[in-house]
Amino acid sequence: MEKLTGGILSAAGFRAGAGRGGIKRAEGLADVALIVSDGPAAAAGAFTTNRFAAAPVAWCRRILPSRDVRAIVANSGNANACTGEQGAADAEAMARTVAGLIGCRPEQVCVASTGVIGHPLPMDKIDDGILAAHANLSGRAEAARAAELAIMTTDTRPKAAAVRSSIGGKAFCVGGMAKGSGMIAPQMATMLAFVTSDASVEPRLLDQVLREAVAETFNRITVDGDTSTNDTVLALAGGASGVRVVPEGAELDAFREAVHAVLADLAEQVVTDGEGATKLVEVQVTGGASDRDAERAARAVAESQLFKCAVYGGDPNWGRVVCAVGYSGAAVEPRLVTAHIGDTCVFRGGVPTNVDAAGQMRGPRVTVRIDLGLGQGRATVWTCDLTERYVQINARYHT
Amino acid sequence: MEKLTGGILSAAGFRAGAGRGGIKRAEGLADVALIVSDGPAAAAGAFTTNRFAAAPVAWCRRILPSRDVRAIVANSGNANACTGEQGAADAEAMARTVAGLIGCRPEQVCVASTGVIGHPLPMDKIDDGILAAHANLSGRAEAARAAELAIMTTDTRPKAAAVRSSIGGKAFCVGGMAKGSGMIAPQMATMLAFVTSDASVEPRLLDQVLREAVAETFNRITVDGDTSTNDTVLALAGGASGVRVVPEGAELDAFREAVHAVLADLAEQVVTDGEGATKLVEVQVTGGASDRDAERAARAVAESQLFKCAVYGGDPNWGRVVCAVGYSGAAVEPRLVTAHIGDTCVFRGGVPTNVDAAGQMRGPRVTVRIDLGLGQGRATVWTCDLTERYVQINARYHT
Repeated sequence: MEKLTGGILSAAGFRAGAGRGGIKRAEGLADVALIVSDGPAAAAGAFTTNRFAAAPVAWCRRILPSRDVRAIVANSGNANACTGEQGAADAEAMARTVAGLIGCRPEQVCVASTGVIGHPLPMDKIDDGILAAHANLSGRAEAARAAELAIMTTDTRPKAAAVRSSIGGKAFCVGGMAKGSGMIAPQMATMLAFVTSDASVEPRLLDQVLREAVAETFNRITVDGDTSTNDTVLALAGGASGVRVVPEGAELDAFREAVHAVLADLAEQVVTDGEGATKLVEVQVTGGASDRDAERAARAVAESQLFKCAVYGGDPNWGRVVCAVGYSGAAVEPRLVTAHIGDTCVFRGGVPTNVDAAGQMRGPRVTVRIDLGLGQGRATVWTCDLTERYVQINARYHT
Repeated sequence: MEKLTGGILSAAGFRAGAGRGGIKRAEGLADVALIVSDGPAAAAGAFTTNRFAAAPVAWCRRILPSRDVRAIVANSGNANACTGEQGAADAEAMARTVAGLIGCRPEQVCVASTGVIGHPLPMDKIDDGILAAHANLSGRAEAARAAELAIMTTDTRPKAAAVRSSIGGKAFCVGGMAKGSGMIAPQMATMLAFVTSDASVEPRLLDQVLREAVAETFNRITVDGDTSTNDTVLALAGGASGVRVVPEGAELDAFREAVHAVLADLAEQVVTDGEGATKLVEVQVTGGASDRDAERAARAVAESQLFKCAVYGGDPNWGRVVCAVGYSGAAVEPRLVTAHIGDTCVFRGGVPTNVDAAGQMRGPRVTVRIDLGLGQGRATVWTCDLTERYVQINARYHT
């Protein structure tokens, strides 16, 4: 498996475009992204579990999985969430406009939105943005970057990943793009991610591979524990490479690995770009009574405000780590718990080792390893530190 | 029921004292508090659910409920948590020292500690503090205040509450003191609270009344979702008033009401003093499919970092409120949900009302009411806003 730089356009058979409709207030920024498949693409999606799921989420749930999707259209600046029946009509209208431009049915167009919630979509501006994005469609790498920029909200940088995988002398690619930096939580994030592949995959198999990969990547990152109304991961597989992925084939393992790699890369970029974040934190738990228990413990540490403040302060605060493990709900036997910060063992046998781990807190990446000493359960969760800047951003960003 | 100002010494038959042992670094601050009952007191306790419960918690769990407790000793500056077998011995030694001074058995002395974790108690300093506190024992109101100050850590102010209740021409009092401002979470807080009463109550009944009141007060406040290793609520009932509280008596209702009032008052003081907090937030949920569901929804809103930042920013951000309700796990039918901020309805029928509620965010107290429209379930949770100051405090406070 080889890393590529082309994002969603690393996969053959796709074009992308971005346009400005004026939904975002800031002058000159594109706010509509369009991804078009040259032919029929299998498509699958994974979505927020929030009960106030936005209109575009409901639209995608209705049409996916599918064996013939032709495009994804996404806007930033307005989430089309909590917008009632008008919102549902507007999401469908976005699909219809794109369908008219590229010559397909509305049900062949996936829709995603991100931004403020509770405001009706400004459909004139949406239409302008779609027309502009369509006019800019291109297969060149700059087009992928333009699409990545068009879906950003509080993100500070665009997010892309891609890999090429070879199997039996034939190669296929998986590419991806994402946005998200706040409201990042279990069961995804205020996060949009679009994945393309030039492998050929049956829709149900694509759906299964996507769900497995999301469970191990996007569902294992947390910035603030808030799960948004609009979280969406979409995957399109067009088949231009000629590689066919079928159940139990060698290609399936390679495809799984490629999708996982792209989603993991994007998930890490999202959490690294967490609002106000200065450090990425990886929390690894082993020795759980079950995987579920290990995940509980890892998530409790990763969501502990106190621990996240300590990371920001460069404080190797083992106390906040074991305290979070203690209230996580996981089976815990204090005397069996071992904790490392970086390479330094900070807690063993129910007591701290009193070895100074301050050096392990420097640099942009902090790793915490906890062994519960009970069984084979393991899980990893990624988060970022909690800073004054997070508070400032979110005290000011109005719905 | 009448409010009193004497705290734990509003109840007759108790004395309090405070002393400095030098456990806290700051010059001149007392760090040991002692509460002594003139005679046998029924005693009960409620404790942290953290699996790394501290040594004094284990000690109290062993001796309570009891029909003959004589004292509570508490220190600040060191939590005696994650201290292994030495910690257990040290907690017992604290009880033994007090027992020697006042003439009872160690098992008649409750122990509580708060402060940094993972460091052995400095027993010389603890002993000095206990001796000084014992020398200062007094029944005067100043002594209650001194004890309140002695157990503070990051608290900015002492916390006390007391009420007098009359039943059939006879009066009894319930008084209380508390500390806590960070690591405040479901299943209590880094929080110590001591309650005294001059009513006479059987230990089992006292235990039951205490648990019920804790469930509705201390277990319904949250500052940061972190549950500490040392949370302890202790209640002593000495009987000096001559009022006897027995099952199914009229006195029981009055006693219940009084204990609830004192704990609710203390809980509100704790959350108002949340680290860096500028506002108290009350989240009321009605119309839940069950009380449990209503509590889930209320807690999700109260623990939403995004919502708490919005409160700090004075932003009536209904979007973050309904979003949190949506991911809370409670049964939710978006069209049936109504939300008010203060007196202003901000959300109805699945969409925002677009009525400006900014005025409802001013002042030190914000109320959010959510009706789920499904059933009779109801719950209230209290929290505070999330500020830069919280981050600063917790980036600097080292274990």
